[in-house]
Amino acid sequence: MRRLSGRRAARQEEGAFVVDGPTLLGEALSSGVVLSDVIATPDAPHDLLTRAEAAGARVHAVTAEVLSGAVDTVTPHAVAAIARRAVSGTEQAVAAAAGSGALVLVDLNDPGNAGTLLRAAESSGMAAVLFAGDSVDPWNPKCVRASAGALFRLTISVGGGARDLIDRFGAAGVTTVATTVRGGTPYHELDLTGPVAFVLGSEAHGLAAEVVEAADRCASIPMSGASESLNVAMAGTVLCFEALRQRGTT
Amino acid sequence: MRRLSGRRAARQEEGAFVVDGPTLLGEALSSGVVLSDVIATPDAPHDLLTRAEAAGARVHAVTAEVLSGAVDTVTPHAVAAIARRAVSGTEQAVAAAAGSGALVLVDLNDPGNAGTLLRAAESSGMAAVLFAGDSVDPWNPKCVRASAGALFRLTISVGGGARDLIDRFGAAGVTTVATTVRGGTPYHELDLTGPVAFVLGSEAHGLAAEVVEAADRCASIPMSGASESLNVAMAGTVLCFEALRQRGTT
Repeated sequence: MRRLSGRRAARQEEGAFVVDGPTLLGEALSSGVVLSDVIATPDAPHDLLTRAEAAGARVHAVTAEVLSGAVDTVTPHAVAAIARRAVSGTEQAVAAAAGSGALVLVDLNDPGNAGTLLRAAESSGMAAVLFAGDSVDPWNPKCVRASAGALFRLTISVGGGARDLIDRFGAAGVTTVATTVRGGTPYHELDLTGPVAFVLGSEAHGLAAEVVEAADRCASIPMSGASESLNVAMAGTVLCFEALRQRGTT
Repeated sequence: MRRLSGRRAARQEEGAFVVDGPTLLGEALSSGVVLSDVIATPDAPHDLLTRAEAAGARVHAVTAEVLSGAVDTVTPHAVAAIARRAVSGTEQAVAAAAGSGALVLVDLNDPGNAGTLLRAAESSGMAAVLFAGDSVDPWNPKCVRASAGALFRLTISVGGGARDLIDRFGAAGVTTVATTVRGGTPYHELDLTGPVAFVLGSEAHGLAAEVVEAADRCASIPMSGASESLNVAMAGTVLCFEALRQRGTT
């Protein structure tokens, strides 16, 4: 489990990742995530272990020392599990976006920002999040945690170049909206009522000019005062909820 | 400096806090924050030290070991400074809000969320952030960092009960909008064009019922899908930018 917690290559090789703590484990069970093994200290909530067993997981009783050696959290919870990664192909993610939109994260490095964006995507009704280019691994423990379960319910794809993805979205009838700190159309002036994919760049560099040009639209969030910009997680959240507001499906 | 980094009581007693790293130090200098002492390793940007000296700070050359002992960051930057806290009284913060709005954070515990909300407040044109009840210390190093300099430019007050603050806002002609996960008016149906104070509760418990009742309005962010809620930083960001959008001052 420690290997899965700490290493992206191990998660890829085994097609598995770690779910840490009772809250996330509950979300995983409710969302139908396939769990192979659960390790639990005597403090773990009993009903959760019963649910995990009913869902086919092997439950192992361990000491707090064993548990804290198995996960990467500073203050480990009483329970952790090995879960199966549900990774979709790019085509599947694009098709999901054609229904209700998507986020495309390009070279996004920070797992906390990625997890926050997963949460924003799900709660605003988007169907898919595509981790393009050199983005962080969606099953990184910090990302899993920050996503608060959204990772378990969205269609997730990994890899692909931003320009290629933009072409695929175009073919599927999804409007691509590149986002830049300044120079784009004020985001609330765009029509976001149809299927839309917001393309967000890296924390440090934003999007490459060619990606911005390739997208159907370019949006910026007008800001007040001396501040440079929002961080990418905040910007993505604002965009997602503006789309939801315009759709009025709430 | 280590004491100021780690202890709220020390920051209060000395009326000072730590600014860590060249980016934040640059923001502090540009924003007119008063610096008493700067410690810098040979790797620190020279022009920044020149600016700090010109602004009246004493600059001390130190080793990387001394620097990393003085700050709480895991990977310390080449420079850190002791800065004067600019804390305003409640009256001053309420008066600032009467111009262009405020956030009121009630028992908010997480310094990262608080810093993000400072950033959202500033970039959406709010004038003040009030840290009410048992909220985290705004000058906590994690909050300073997450605020990306917004802390240096906003009117900040600390303390006061939420209900008392709501009364003061009322007397100043500022509409108070309590925020709840569900049951409130959809946020985008509220008129947010006038001076408004968004009241946000703790991560774990939200706002007390009596605070919600005391406020002029209660807003919720309608959500899609299975997700429980946004975190408080995301919710506050959505509210701040809806107010800015409605004001159209961008």
